[in-house]
Formats: sequence, C-alpha cells, structure tokens
Amino acid sequence: MNPQNLRLLLEQLAAGQTTVDTALHRLETLPFEALDFACVDHHRELRCGFPEVIFGQGKTPGQILTLFEKLAAAGANVLATRVSADAAEGVVSRFPGASYHELARALTLRQNPAPAGSGLVAVVCAGTADMPVAEEARLTIEMMDQPLRTIYDVGVAGLHRLLARSAELRQARVIVVVAGMEGALPSVVGGLVKAPVIAVPTSVGYGASFHGLAALLAMLNSCAAGVSVVNIDNGFGAGYQAALINQAGQSQTQG
Amino acid sequence: MNPQNLRLLLEQLAAGQTTVDTALHRLETLPFEALDFACVDHHRELRCGFPEVIFGQGKTPGQILTLFEKLAAAGANVLATRVSADAAEGVVSRFPGASYHELARALTLRQNPAPAGSGLVAVVCAGTADMPVAEEARLTIEMMDQPLRTIYDVGVAGLHRLLARSAELRQARVIVVVAGMEGALPSVVGGLVKAPVIAVPTSVGYGASFHGLAALLAMLNSCAAGVSVVNIDNGFGAGYQAALINQAGQSQTQG
Amino acid sequence: MNPQNLRLLLEQLAAGQTTVDTALHRLETLPFEALDFACVDHHRELRCGFPEVIFGQGKTPGQILTLFEKLAAAGANVLATRVSADAAEGVVSRFPGASYHELARALTLRQNPAPAGSGLVAVVCAGTADMPVAEEARLTIEMMDQPLRTIYDVGVAGLHRLLARSAELRQARVIVVVAGMEGALPSVVGGLVKAPVIAVPTSVGYGASFHGLAALLAMLNSCAAGVSVVNIDNGFGAGYQAALINQAGQSQTQG
Amino acid sequence: MNPQNLRLLLEQLAAGQTTVDTALHRLETLPFEALDFACVDHHRELRCGFPEVIFGQGKTPGQILTLFEKLAAAGANVLATRVSADAAEGVVSRFPGASYHELARALTLRQNPAPAGSGLVAVVCAGTADMPVAEEARLTIEMMDQPLRTIYDVGVAGLHRLLARSAELRQARVIVVVAGMEGALPSVVGGLVKAPVIAVPTSVGYGASFHGLAALLAMLNSCAAGVSVVNIDNGFGAGYQAALINQAGQSQTQG
Amino acid sequence: MNPQNLRLLLEQLAAGQTTVDTALHRLETLPFEALDFACVDHHRELRCGFPEVIFGQGKTPGQILTLFEKLAAAGANVLATRVSADAAEGVVSRFPGASYHELARALTLRQNPAPAGSGLVAVVCAGTADMPVAEEARLTIEMMDQPLRTIYDVGVAGLHRLLARSAELRQARVIVVVAGMEGALPSVVGGLVKAPVIAVPTSVGYGASFHGLAALLAMLNSCAAGVSVVNIDNGFGAGYQAALINQAGQSQTQG
Amino acid sequence: MNPQNLRLLLEQLAAGQTTVDTALHRLETLPFEALDFACVDHHRELRCGFPEVIFGQGKTPGQILTLFEKLAAAGANVLATRVSADAAEGVVSRFPGASYHELARALTLRQNPAPAGSGLVAVVCAGTADMPVAEEARLTIEMMDQPLRTIYDVGVAGLHRLLARSAELRQARVIVVVAGMEGALPSVVGGLVKAPVIAVPTSVGYGASFHGLAALLAMLNSCAAGVSVVNIDNGFGAGYQAALINQAGQSQTQG
Amino acid sequence: MNPQNLRLLLEQLAAGQTTVDTALHRLETLPFEALDFACVDHHRELRCGFPEVIFGQGKTPGQILTLFEKLAAAGANVLATRVSADAAEGVVSRFPGASYHELARALTLRQNPAPAGSGLVAVVCAGTADMPVAEEARLTIEMMDQPLRTIYDVGVAGLHRLLARSAELRQARVIVVVAGMEGALPSVVGGLVKAPVIAVPTSVGYGASFHGLAALLAMLNSCAAGVSVVNIDNGFGAGYQAALINQAGQSQTQG
Amino acid sequence: MNPQNLRLLLEQLAAGQTTVDTALHRLETLPFEALDFACVDHHRELRCGFPEVIFGQGKTPGQILTLFEKLAAAGANVLATRVSADAAEGVVSRFPGASYHELARALTLRQNPAPAGSGLVAVVCAGTADMPVAEEARLTIEMMDQPLRTIYDVGVAGLHRLLARSAELRQARVIVVVAGMEGALPSVVGGLVKAPVIAVPTSVGYGASFHGLAALLAMLNSCAAGVSVVNIDNGFGAGYQAALINQAGQSQTQG
Repeated sequence: MNPQNLRLLLEQLAAGQTTVDTALHRLETLPFEALDFACVDHHRELRCGFPEVIFGQGKTPGQILTLFEKLAAAGANVLATRVSADAAEGVVSRFPGASYHELARALTLRQNPAPAGSGLVAVVCAGTADMPVAEEARLTIEMMDQPLRTIYDVGVAGLHRLLARSAELRQARVIVVVAGMEGALPSVVGGLVKAPVIAVPTSVGYGASFHGLAALLAMLNSCAAGVSVVNIDNGFGAGYQAALINQAGQSQTQG
Repeated sequence: MNPQNLRLLLEQLAAGQTTVDTALHRLETLPFEALDFACVDHHRELRCGFPEVIFGQGKTPGQILTLFEKLAAAGANVLATRVSADAAEGVVSRFPGASYHELARALTLRQNPAPAGSGLVAVVCAGTADMPVAEEARLTIEMMDQPLRTIYDVGVAGLHRLLARSAELRQARVIVVVAGMEGALPSVVGGLVKAPVIAVPTSVGYGASFHGLAALLAMLNSCAAGVSVVNIDNGFGAGYQAALINQAGQSQTQG
Repeated sequence: MNPQNLRLLLEQLAAGQTTVDTALHRLETLPFEALDFACVDHHRELRCGFPEVIFGQGKTPGQILTLFEKLAAAGANVLATRVSADAAEGVVSRFPGASYHELARALTLRQNPAPAGSGLVAVVCAGTADMPVAEEARLTIEMMDQPLRTIYDVGVAGLHRLLARSAELRQARVIVVVAGMEGALPSVVGGLVKAPVIAVPTSVGYGASFHGLAALLAMLNSCAAGVSVVNIDNGFGAGYQAALINQAGQSQTQG
Repeated sequence: MNPQNLRLLLEQLAAGQTTVDTALHRLETLPFEALDFACVDHHRELRCGFPEVIFGQGKTPGQILTLFEKLAAAGANVLATRVSADAAEGVVSRFPGASYHELARALTLRQNPAPAGSGLVAVVCAGTADMPVAEEARLTIEMMDQPLRTIYDVGVAGLHRLLARSAELRQARVIVVVAGMEGALPSVVGGLVKAPVIAVPTSVGYGASFHGLAALLAMLNSCAAGVSVVNIDNGFGAGYQAALINQAGQSQTQG
Repeated sequence: MNPQNLRLLLEQLAAGQTTVDTALHRLETLPFEALDFACVDHHRELRCGFPEVIFGQGKTPGQILTLFEKLAAAGANVLATRVSADAAEGVVSRFPGASYHELARALTLRQNPAPAGSGLVAVVCAGTADMPVAEEARLTIEMMDQPLRTIYDVGVAGLHRLLARSAELRQARVIVVVAGMEGALPSVVGGLVKAPVIAVPTSVGYGASFHGLAALLAMLNSCAAGVSVVNIDNGFGAGYQAALINQAGQSQTQG
Repeated sequence: MNPQNLRLLLEQLAAGQTTVDTALHRLETLPFEALDFACVDHHRELRCGFPEVIFGQGKTPGQILTLFEKLAAAGANVLATRVSADAAEGVVSRFPGASYHELARALTLRQNPAPAGSGLVAVVCAGTADMPVAEEARLTIEMMDQPLRTIYDVGVAGLHRLLARSAELRQARVIVVVAGMEGALPSVVGGLVKAPVIAVPTSVGYGASFHGLAALLAMLNSCAAGVSVVNIDNGFGAGYQAALINQAGQSQTQG
Repeated sequence: MNPQNLRLLLEQLAAGQTTVDTALHRLETLPFEALDFACVDHHRELRCGFPEVIFGQGKTPGQILTLFEKLAAAGANVLATRVSADAAEGVVSRFPGASYHELARALTLRQNPAPAGSGLVAVVCAGTADMPVAEEARLTIEMMDQPLRTIYDVGVAGLHRLLARSAELRQARVIVVVAGMEGALPSVVGGLVKAPVIAVPTSVGYGASFHGLAALLAMLNSCAAGVSVVNIDNGFGAGYQAALINQAGQSQTQG
Repeated sequence: MNPQNLRLLLEQLAAGQTTVDTALHRLETLPFEALDFACVDHHRELRCGFPEVIFGQGKTPGQILTLFEKLAAAGANVLATRVSADAAEGVVSRFPGASYHELARALTLRQNPAPAGSGLVAVVCAGTADMPVAEEARLTIEMMDQPLRTIYDVGVAGLHRLLARSAELRQARVIVVVAGMEGALPSVVGGLVKAPVIAVPTSVGYGASFHGLAALLAMLNSCAAGVSVVNIDNGFGAGYQAALINQAGQSQTQG
C-alpha cells in the first residue's frame, strides 16, 4: 500500500464508503511500505546533520565521480573517504572547488558556509604514521562544522610532548585519540582530562601488532574510565561520533 | 621538592636570599613531586564529576567495606560495582542508607541530592540475560546525576518491540546499547537515531560467542556511523562515558 | 498511539470530526507503537510454529518454573532446554505430564496431539559424547511435530557403521549431523545424500579442539555442497531449522 | 572383484560349481570395488540435481575451458564460479551461448529449458559491496531452476528499506542473507520471517572485521532461531543449499 | 539384509529358486548392512593389534566398570585412560589383577603374556609436570607389547641431561617426545637421531602458553625433519602410533 | 681445542710430558669444539639417509644453483623443494640429468640407482588442489628410495572413490594423507587401516579455512587413533617421516 | 664412559698400555655421558647465582616440603613461588626461619647474609591488582641479593603519580614494569628512562583482556625502544632477568 | 606559561612586585609547558646514548633522505633501518661515507670514532633465513659502540654446531638470540649460559608458524629463566636493549 492508497482508504472512510473496522483491519496489517517513504523523508531531516559521505574503498573512479555528482547536485557539502589520487583527479577536474587531501586520502567539497559552532573537538595523534587516520577524523569533523584543534605526534614514549599540551586538551569537549602499536595514548589522555575520549586503533605496527589488534585490545582495556573505541583505522567513525557529541552540547532536544 | 620547599624557595627569592637565575634553574629541573600534590588536588577538582567508584571484583568483603567507609566519610555519593551479596551485606549493615542492587551486583549510597540535569541518556538492552550489565550502566548514570530512561528486552530478533519505542530513542542525547550473542542491536539503533551510541558487548552467548568476542567484533564493525564500543560486560565504562557526553551539553568549558 | 487511539482516529474521520489530511498526517508520522500490538499478534500467528521455548541456562529453578507455568497456561506444547535436574524436579512435580530428558537436559510438555506430518528429518550423531546435543535437536524436532529418525554413533573412524545406514539417510528430507572432535561427519554425510545437511559442532574433544572451534571450522569448510552450520552445541537451533525445512515441503506459501 | 566377476560367482553358484559357504565367504570379504561402479552410477542419478559446477579459483583459463567443454558436451547446464574476465573470454568465444556475469565472476551456459518450479528463494543482501557474493548465490539458484527474488541493499543501518520489503520476504520458502561488516542482517531477517535463513558472511569490512570473521561469528550467534551459516564469501554453497531446501517442498521422497 | 538373509539368498540361488539376474540385482543394491557385520569382524581381525581402549573422560565410574567388564570378558588385555582414582577403585575391587597408575590416571589389565617384540620405542619427557602425559604414552605402548625405554626430565634448559642419554636415544626405532611450555624438545631430539619422532605438546605452562597452544605450534614448526605431532596432552595417541610404527618393523605385509 | 690439539695432548701424555691429572683436567673442561668435527662426521654417517635437501623458498636462482652444484658434486641424489620454474631452468641447463616437477615445484637429480626396498608407502590426496603438496611428499619418498603408491582425488565428499581403493590402502606400511578444506580425510583413512597415518593439512580452502588452520585443527583432533600431523603444506616433512617409518621395518638397530 | 673410566684411559696411555691413536679414537667417539658429570658440576658453579627455586604450582604440600628440605639442607637461600597458604604452613612449621609472603604467594628462607651489591633494580607496578606479580618479582630480586626499590600503584590513568617518582626511576640500572589491562605502563616508563625495561603483562583485566593477552601484545608493540617482555604473570622470570642484568654491571667476565 | 614568563614571574617576586602566595599559586597551577623545554633538553642529555634512528618502513626515499640529512647535520652517527635498496641509493650518493647493508636493509653513517667499550654482546642466529633480523640487531649494537660477536646458523636441529661455540657464548654479558620456525633456540641458549638472553622471534616459517606467532609464543614460554622477548622481526629493539644492558655494566649511576 503506497501513500496514495493510504489517502484513498482514508477518503473512503471519510466518505462512509468503508467502515471503521475494515479500515482498522487494513491499517493493522498494513505493510511497512506505506510508511516507508514518509519514514525516509523524516529520517533524512532527523539524521542529515551530515549524511553525504562516500566510502571510496573498493569503488572505481567512475563510480566515485557519479556518486559525487549526485550528492553535489543536492547542494550539500560532500565528503569522500579512502579515495586514491587517481580517482580524486577525475573529481577535482569536474569540481574545481573540491579539495583532495592526500594524507587522509579524502575529497571534500564545501558548498555551504560553516556555521559558528560552540565547544571544541580535539584530535590527538600518537605518531606521524598514524596521521592519515587522524586526518580522516579531522576532515570529517570539519565537514560537520564543529570547531576543532589537532595535537599531533604526542606519543607516550615522549611523554613531555603530550604534557606540554595538556592545557589544550582540557579545553576540548570531546577528544579523538588515534594511535597504533601498543595503543597506550587513549589511556594516558583519558587520565588527564574529563572529556569523553573516542579511541581509534590504527594498523600501524610490526609483527605482533597483528594489523591493529594489539592497539584495539589495549584501548578496549583502558584503565581510564570515559574511553570508548571504534574500528581499526576508522578515522571517519571516530570523527563522526565526536562531532555528534560536540553537537549534543549545542541543542537540548533531538527527537 | 615538596610544596613547603617550594614556598621556602619563593620566600628566599622574595627576601633577596637567592637570585632569579638560581630559582629559575631549580624550578626548571624541579622534580615532578613538587607539583604533584597540587596537581592531585587540582585534578580532583577538575575530574571529580564522579570519581568515587569501587571495583569490587577480586576484593574481599573487608576491603570493600574499608574503601566504602573512606569514600563515604568524604561526604560524596558512593558507587561500588561487582560486589557479591555477601560483601554487600556487610556494607549495608554499616550504612543503612546504602542500597544493594542484586541484578547489577552494585552498591550505591546517595549522600547528596541529585541536581536537576538536562538532556537524556537512554540505556537499551537486547535480552534479559544482558540486564545485569545494563543495570550497571544505569546505576552509574544515575549516580552521576544524569536524567535517564531504560528500554529493555528489545533484541533484534523481535524487531517490532524496538520499533515501538523508537520515538523514545530519538529523545535521547546519548544512548548506551547493551547486547550479547551476535551484538547486532547497536547497528540497528544507530541507524534509527542521530545521537551517539555507546555499545557494550556482553559475555552472554553460547559456543562460538567466545565469551563476548563475537558481539565485540560485530559492534566494532557496525555499519552505522556514530557507534563506539567499550570492553565486554563493561556497563560501568559505558555509563560513565554516556554521562560525560550528556554533561558536555550542559557546560561550555571544562579545562 | 495505541490501537484504541487508532480506532478513535478512524471513528473521528468516519464521523467527519477530522479531515483526511489531518488523519493522513497523523498516520504518516505514526509512531511504531500503534502498529506494534497488532504486529505482535500478527507475528505470533505467522511465526508460532513453535515459539514457546525456554532457554534454561543462567535461569534459576524458580524462573524456569514461572516461565513454564505461563507458557503451559496458554495451552501450547512447551519445551525448555538446558535445564538442570534440580530445576526439572520442580517443574515435573507441578506438571506431572511433563517429561525430563536427562541426557538432553530438556523438559517437554505435550498438551496437543501431534499432527501427522510428511517428510522425514534424520538426526545423525558421531559419538556417544555428542548425544546430549543430538538429543536436544531430536526433542526440538519432535515438539515441532516433524517425523524423525535418529542414527547415532556412526563416526567417521568406523565408516562401515555409517555406510550400513546410508539407505536410511537417503530417505530423509533434511539431516542434522552432530559431531565434535574433527567434525568430519557432515562432509561424509553430505557426500552420501542429496538432502540439505545442518551441521552442529559440539564442544566434545581434547586439547586443540578448543571447545568446539576445530569442529566448527571443519564444518564451515566442508567440501560437500549443501552443508550449513549452527553454533557450537546448538542442538536446538539445528533441530529448529531442520523442522522449518521439513515443513517447507508441506505448504506452498508462508507469508 | 568387478560386477562381471560378481555375476560369474553367482552363475557358478547357480550352476552348482561352488558352494553356498564359499560364495558367502567371498561376498563377506568382498572389496568395496565390486560395488563401486554401480554405486557411482546410482550416486550420479541420485545426486545430480546440479552437479556440473566448476570452481574457477586457482585454475588456469585453459583448465577452465577444458572442464567447461567436457561438461557442456554432456548436454547439461553448466555453472563456473570465481572465473576471471580473461578466463571467461576464452569460454564465451568458444560457447557463444554462455554468459559471463562480471559482478558474480561466474559463467553460465543453459542448454535445457528451466522447468516450472514452485516455492520461492529470496536472496537478501546488506550492502552493494556484498553483491558479488549475493550474485553468486543467485546464479546458483537460477541454474538449479528454482524461482527466486533478490532484495538488495537493505542493511540494518537503514532499517526502513528492509521493513519496506518485509511482505516479499515472508513469501519466500527459504532465504539466503548475505552481509559483511557486523553481519547483523540474518538476525533481523530471521526475526521477521518463519522461513529458514541461510546466512553468508562476506569478507567486506575494515580493520577488526578480520576478513569476515566478525560477520561469521555474529551469524553463528544469531539470537533468531532458524538461522544456519556457510563459509565466508561462499555464495555458491548458500545458493546450493537454499535450492535443495526449496526442492524439498516439491517432492516427497528422495532416497 | 543381515548375514542370515544373505545366506538365504545364496541358498535360493544354489537351489534354483531364484535367478542369477535377480540375485545380482539384489546384491548390487545391497544395503551396506549386509556387509557390515562381516566388515566389523574382518576389521577387528585386521585392526585389533590393540583395540580395547576405554576413554574414561566424561564417563561415570559405573559406565567405566561396565565397559571394562565387557572387554575383560573377551579375554584381551584392557587399557582405560583418564580414569579418576574413584572410578579406578571400583574396577580394581572387581578385577584384583588390574592395576591403577595414579600419575597416568590409567587402568591396565593384562590377561595375555607379552610376546617378545623387537625394536625399541623411547618415551622422552621434558619436565616432571609433563610426566602424566608421558606415562599415558608409556602404558599404551606397554599394553601393545612393544619394547620401550623412558628418558624423563631432560628438558632443553638443562641440555647436558639430554645429551648424556643420546646414545640411548639413538637405539630407538621410534621416539615419543612429550613437552609443554615452549615445546622445544622434539626439535632438539629430532636433530640428534634418525628415528621418526612423535611429538606430544602438553598443556603444562603459564600465561601465554594458552593451554598447550604454544607448544603445539612450536612442534608443528620444528626445524628438524622427521617430526610429526598429535593433539595436546594426547599421550595415548602418540603411544598408539609409536607402537604401530615399531610393529611395522616386525612384519612385511599388513593388508 | 681442535682434533690436532687433542692428538698433541695425548702424545704429550704418552711421552710423559704431562701428567694424567693435567690431561684429565684439560679434557673435563674441554670445549665442545674438539668433539665437534668428529661429531659432525659421525652424525653424517648416522643421519644421512637423505640429508641433501635444498629448501628453495626465499632463495635466489643463483643461490639454488650453487647449493645444487655443491651437493651434486658429492655424488649423492639431490632434492630441491619449492623451486620456481625460473630457478629450475638454470639448474636443468647445468645438470641435464636433473628433472623439474612442475606441480610439486621440485627438482630431483638421481645419481645412484634406487636399492630394492621392502614395505610400501601410500600417498593419499583429497582433491586436485591438494596435489602439489602430495607430489612434494611423493618425490621425497621416492628420492629416499622407498616403494610407494599414490591414491589421488579421493576426498570424503565422494566416499565411494576412496572405498574403491581401500584394499590398496591396507597394503601400505605407512600412509601420508594430504587434505585441505575441512581436513576430514585422515580420520576416514585412519579408520580403514591399521598402518600409521601422517596427515598433512594444506592451505587449500576459502574464507574460514584460514589458510589451512581449519584442516590442521581437524587433523589434530582426529577421532581415529594412529594419526599424527605435520605443518600446513609440509609435504616434504610428511614424506620424510613416512620414509623413515618404512625404513624402520627394514633394519633392526639404528644407534 | 664415566670420569673414572676416563682417568683409567689416560693412565693406560701414560703407562704406555695403549696407543695415542686408540685413545684418540675412544675420545672422539666418547659419549656425552663422560663429560656430563663434569659438565654438571661446572654448570652448577657457573650458573648457580640462584638456582634453588621451587615452582609450587601443581605440586602437593608434601612435594613442596620435600623439595624445600632438600634445598635447605644444601645450606643455600631458598625461594618457592606459587605456594598456597596451606602448603606454606607445613614448610614454616618445619622451618621457623622461613617467611611466607601472602600477596606474592611465595616462601623464602635466607640462610646466607646478603652481600652488599651495587646498582639498583626498580619494580614498578600499575595497579593494586597487579601487586602479587610485582611482589613475586621483588622477592626474586631480593633473594638474588640485588638492591631494589618498589614503585607501586602508578598506572597511566593517573600520570602525575608516576611522574612524581620519575627521579627515582632514573636511578635504576634496570626496571621491571608490571601491568595488566591495556599494558601501557612499560611504554611510558620506557620513554622516561634510559635503563632497560623488563615488562610483565598480568592477567588482571576484564572481558577483552583475554587473561593478559591484551597487555602482552601492547608490551610487545611498545613504541619505546629498550623494552622486552616475559610471559603473562611471570614475576619470577622478570625478577630473575633483572637481577642478572644488574649483576652484569658488577663483574667484567662471566665465562 | 613559557620559560620567559616563568623568568618574569620570578623577577616580579624578586622585585617585590608580587607576593610569595601569588607566585606559589601560579606555580602550583603551572601548565606543564613551562617545564617542557628544559625537560626536553634534559631528556636529550639523559637519553641520547643513541637516539638518531630512522625507521624507513612506510617512508618514501625522499623522506628518508631528508631525515638522514637532518640527523647527519647534527654531527652524530646515524642508523636507518628497513630501508630499500632504492632509497639507500639516494642517501649513499649524497653521503659517500654512509654504508648500505643489503641483508639487514639498513643504512649507517659513522661520524664519530667508536669508544673502547667493555663487556661483550653476542648475537646468535638459528638459520640463514633469520640473518636479516640478526644483522639489524648487530648493526644497532655496533652503532651504539658496544663490543659484539656474531654466532650464526646454530639452530637446534644441529645441536653440535651450537655446542661447539658454547665457550664463546659464555663470554658474553648479554645475548641476543634470533630464531624463527619453532623458536627453540633461546631456551637452549638460556640453559647454557648465565647471561640475560633477549629473544627475537622472526616471521620465518611455513604454514602454522603464522608469521612468527609460533616462535613468539615459544619464546614467551621458555623453560629457561633469564629470557625476555621483543616483537617479531624486531632486530633493532633487541639490539638496542642488549646495548643498554651491556652499558649498564660500565657505569654505576644513570639518574
């Protein structure tokens, strides 16, 4: 039953052409399809703080360009992650306003001016090898229009570099911490601040790091309360959640 | 160098008994001890939204009672998790105002009235077997004075029960989702709402659940953006972070 | 909006007290609750081939008895799995018609006569140590009123015992194969018959069986097409799916 | 002892040239070879619903072509899975009637018209990245002449898309559900329908998906009864078993 | 068709009561049952170097006694492994000639005198904690009537103890090497001798030994050729195979 | 102290130029070097049934050629495993008598006529994809001059093919069984014969075979006694041990 | 050949009763036994910095007492680890000078005065739950007569406590760092000091700590150079190696 | 507050422009930045035994050259590990004094003469395939100016080669032992010497070596006391720690 049919049923009821019991029965066994389209629209409004993201991994340059065009045509800001330089070239030559961020392997197109947000998201990164993941988080937060600050290359083996920036850390409302190898940084940061910490293990490491498993397990077992974890190398996911949390401080209701 | 010594140094400088260069040198090579005590105090003020938590696991009833007395004497609210009924009995007979929550295996003592907070934390739970972990999260949030609502027994195998409460879900500023077995609930909830989701895998399951590993991996791989994960059965950790996130909406600065 | 409210809305529309547009709007944004109760009922009718199962694991004797009473009161057949002898005693003394199956650790109460079904489910078991899991599958199939035959103790190390019963195997419409240790039996059975095979790894084994992991992996990698796998020791799940498959041969539509 | 020898023995017995005891002794110690040839033939008749499948993985284009020619010469329909575009080219230029399905990486040649089957197999797929595996399942079912319907891109993070098609789902006699990442879809589908669900984990995912392990474990631990699982990316195996199950509804005996 | 029926068929053929074609047809489609009993007998003769083994693990004292009585009644030597002291007591009081070996947790009853065998099996053991597994191997070899020598407590951390016995090692035709922890002993022994080495990892170890996994992997990766491995703690399996290998030197044909 | 020095010491003692006590002391603290050269020689004699094996993996064509020349110059038979076609070409053009076995990726050069051995080694192989590993085992056994027979493509999913050759299996003194995927074949073979079985898991498989782990675990957990296991894809190791075992039947002492 | 025989041979040579060639031949083929006894003695002298350690795990109180008596009788200091309170009672009542350390579950008996050592071993511990392992390390170092200092309860979640003691850390020649959960402490300590760090993962943790695996992997992947790792909970091993390292600073040669 | 500000504060205090209490308060809440610069400098002096190491893995030739130039400009010795031949070429053509070590894949540039150190580090290596990792350790030790000796190709399968060099082993103050496959060598070496052993598992191996996991677990479970372990293939880490340990014997204090 599509929305047109639903209207028809109600009109029949209003016109006395069907009974309340019949209409009730039809509505009770109503397939979800009838609600679906409305549901989608409603969802978009509710959820579209920043829905327009293209995951480039496993997609051809042509597919990425097509998706980019479709989203750009809707007038929104666009973010594409895990895009190769080759694929990016095609998009940028089509959208001169788009930027390719080589380290993060991400494409961005800003079509709307950034609103003035409050709060602050910090993106902290252990080593230079973890920077691509941190940059993916940073761009996600930026495209979701949240104020942010990056604190890079502050791994625990040189603790003084981290401590030197602890005042900055304490100003953040939420902190993304990116680390590979032994994944110790989120525990240390979590012990220095009150803000919630979103930890991102990276696949950076050798031998028994098992492609990020060591860092992942370490972060899940953090002795600091207030730390939660996303998937290995998932900078987008961490940035997305951090932006949501920072936004939570800006409005009272979201339902 | 302890604080008394620091004061002495400054008094000597003020009295002209030492030079600026000498004082500067001593301060630059100052062992961390000198700052430590102040640091601790400062830290407590900064961080003590709710620091007084006792992890009961692996502690004797006597140790739990001693810690409980020490924290209670400071006048704060007290939370003790993973406390056996036996250990709880000793605490409750000593503190008649304390409550033992059997399902969550937690003890609480409220000595301060709860302030009127804003926002809303939802605690969602897949099955009745996951309830002990969900209750640990709930009590943690409650003791941190955040408004909350529980939505229990809404596992994905009976989707209509979850959908029936989707409006309530959408009112939350942050959602804790507790699930064992295949750990699918956070993905489904994350797809229905805009709020950040803190997923808690539980060790509930049989055979190849490997004591929560299946649920943990599922949650880390959630196809819904905005989901982060804490350790298996770590209801406290999820509740703690959710409360921090909800608080983030109430104040502008925390440094 | 509950069903009463839904009726009220339709009555108002029929009575001309509201417009079609208003009703349409309210229905489109209808929370799922309104559909929920109907949905549940509808679901029960659609899905209740055999919904009344109690998983006894992790439940107290009292909880099991309470659930048993509730389901029995509805007049249906009742199955409770993973019930200890202690817990069973309480149920049987309350329901003299209930039977406790010690090996399968299951309780059954038949309140309706079994209909005459067609097709045949075979339950095949490698060793005597795997029998508790096989028996859980057998009882599930029996309570779902499907014809069945058991072929036990036919492990691959004594192949002649299995081959001696291959004619019986070929008569089955679907076969549950239960095996621990190296989990080779489903591959051998799958190579002898045309029927679909549901493989159940058991936690029976020593050392590097890793509590059923060896058998699970072996079954997932079966070189015989037509084999699918359920969780370790999940006799109920295998029996349930086998019964569904056997039923699929008896009716044409199920929507 | 081959069948000719067996006949000779019986003729000798009938002719009084040997005794019953001698014949009995020879038959009791009869090597399996004597029965083998008959057995093979019998097996072919019993089992050849669709035996002619070529697994292309690890085979050279030349080997695939040779096998294809041999099977095609027997006049049957032919299916070859995991075939590269290069290898396919050679086959299609030799068999113009053959089709190469790029997404599924499969080759098909239909030489017999499809019989009119009853029942319905649904193939459900979570994301576009899972489609190659779903397509392999679809082609297998199609070549086994079973009616089917595909329901693609209905992952759990956008639940409304799945719910919108729940009526279609309920019409299926058996459902193949293909999903990567957290592997939650089979649980959700299993909770919506009564039909048996064959779950296929895919290796689609990042980081801690561990090449499909996360989805595999999730599916094995499904809280929905009636779900069984095949190997990671094994679209063929799931399609094959689903076709067998659907066929089970069409005939009463198979022995 | 049981053997009696098979004789009947042959008698009918001999008596001219049935034709060769009819008999041939019945034999070709002969269910395996007809051959089964003969097969079993034949198998017993072929395989019963030492078939009478009872695995006590998971069996009640009563079950062990019953099995023991049945095997003893057949007049053979009997071995029961993984038998608790309690279960053993019941057997020994019934069979005063039986011996309980506390360390190996095994019961033996010798009813036939040991034949004079040739060759030599050595059982080598790393540490005293590995001795129960080594003893299970030793008793198995002894009950299979093979000459043996034990070389215990010669772990690689005190290499001189092992080297001191290298001459004895070189006299063995096959060597069982039992070790836990890092499982290095089979590699060292394999490098000192020409005989095949059967390695048995034990679950002896701490922390990251993971209940024998470390030793198992080490042995599978032995840099010495001529080493094969059995399951963790499987002293019986190693002893059984070593005895088979030693027997291989005593007879020319076994078919 | 080298052998010359040892002779010198003894000559001094014989000549009365040193005392017994001094000589005794020097010998007791004798570094192992003095014995080493003798030891090596002795070892070679004892152990060189077939020592001249080159593992080609990770070596350059030049390195393989050099090693091959060195071993060939000693007049012995030479075996080189895991050699690429490129590397083989260089060796064969230098040694026209050498043969390259493409499937096994092995090079052999026979310089001595094979002695007439007794006994029989069988090499059994589940599927065609497992043949490279089986061929590596076969060539190893052949170069160690043991009689052998191959029984290929007898996987458990088509049991009749294996059963048809069970008489041949029973003639072997030791059996190498090579299988990938679920690794069930050694258990089935082990149940049919009395001879020791050396199982070789292969890395053949998809998804949850985890590069041979599934087959490895299955083989370690074989329910058939008399099965031991070598590393994944280690055809050489299995062939080497099988040859040692077959040789054990040909001589009485080896020390 | 035992030492007496060796002397005899040399005396014969000195007396002209045998030739140099004969003696040389006998010595070259000398079994290792001849050297063994000397070797053992020599080894004891070389290696017995502290050989008298009893691992109590898996030993009965009686066995522990017997071993303790034997070692004590030799006049040395004695250390027994992993001893239960029950077993300790028996030893202490027999040796009133022995001390039982409840937290470390270790017994010590000092019979020789501690020599005045140089250097300093620090034992650092993350949380109170890790203290039993740290104490085992401490007692081991103490019984090996090395100067030590303990720095406990300085986990990374409260960094100021660790930093406050960094001066003490820098005085150590070698540092044992004990931590469970995420195992981050060795990386942080390794970044603060120049001394080698021996990291000990403990099995302290919940859920995805997997009994110390998370901490173990973290420590192996430490981003700080100069960190090596021992087995989970192996306080003895870490203490033993740390003592060896500290001793290395006290003598120039050890061969 | 930067150092300039700290000086200003002290000058104000000395000048009577602020009170002791105010200064004390400002210092107690002093951000770590003020101390940071001093701290860094101090750290460099304390820690820079050999800090200038470039990890080449994952860096472009250009990046490696840039870092090399920067470190070389400081006048120190430079070590770059995991450098490809291509990347090395660029560096060597720029720094003719630099050497590329092909096997170790490392670049070294010595600008300062090596001081005459005491003690001895031994680097022991099981097989030729492990040599690249051993060479990385050797070069690290050499560049840290510690005396060293290499003992290569002494794997446990040919024990006499190792024993022949045991005297050399006993002269070392600390030993690095590099081994792949079953990782048994550190246990054997640890049993022969008194010196601490740093074990390095390598990823050399086949099948179930799982890229070094087997060797890693074996080494962690070594039955020899005095063995600790670094990450798989981490020759640098082992060499670095061994050099630190050897240095510990040369100076008394390091704080």
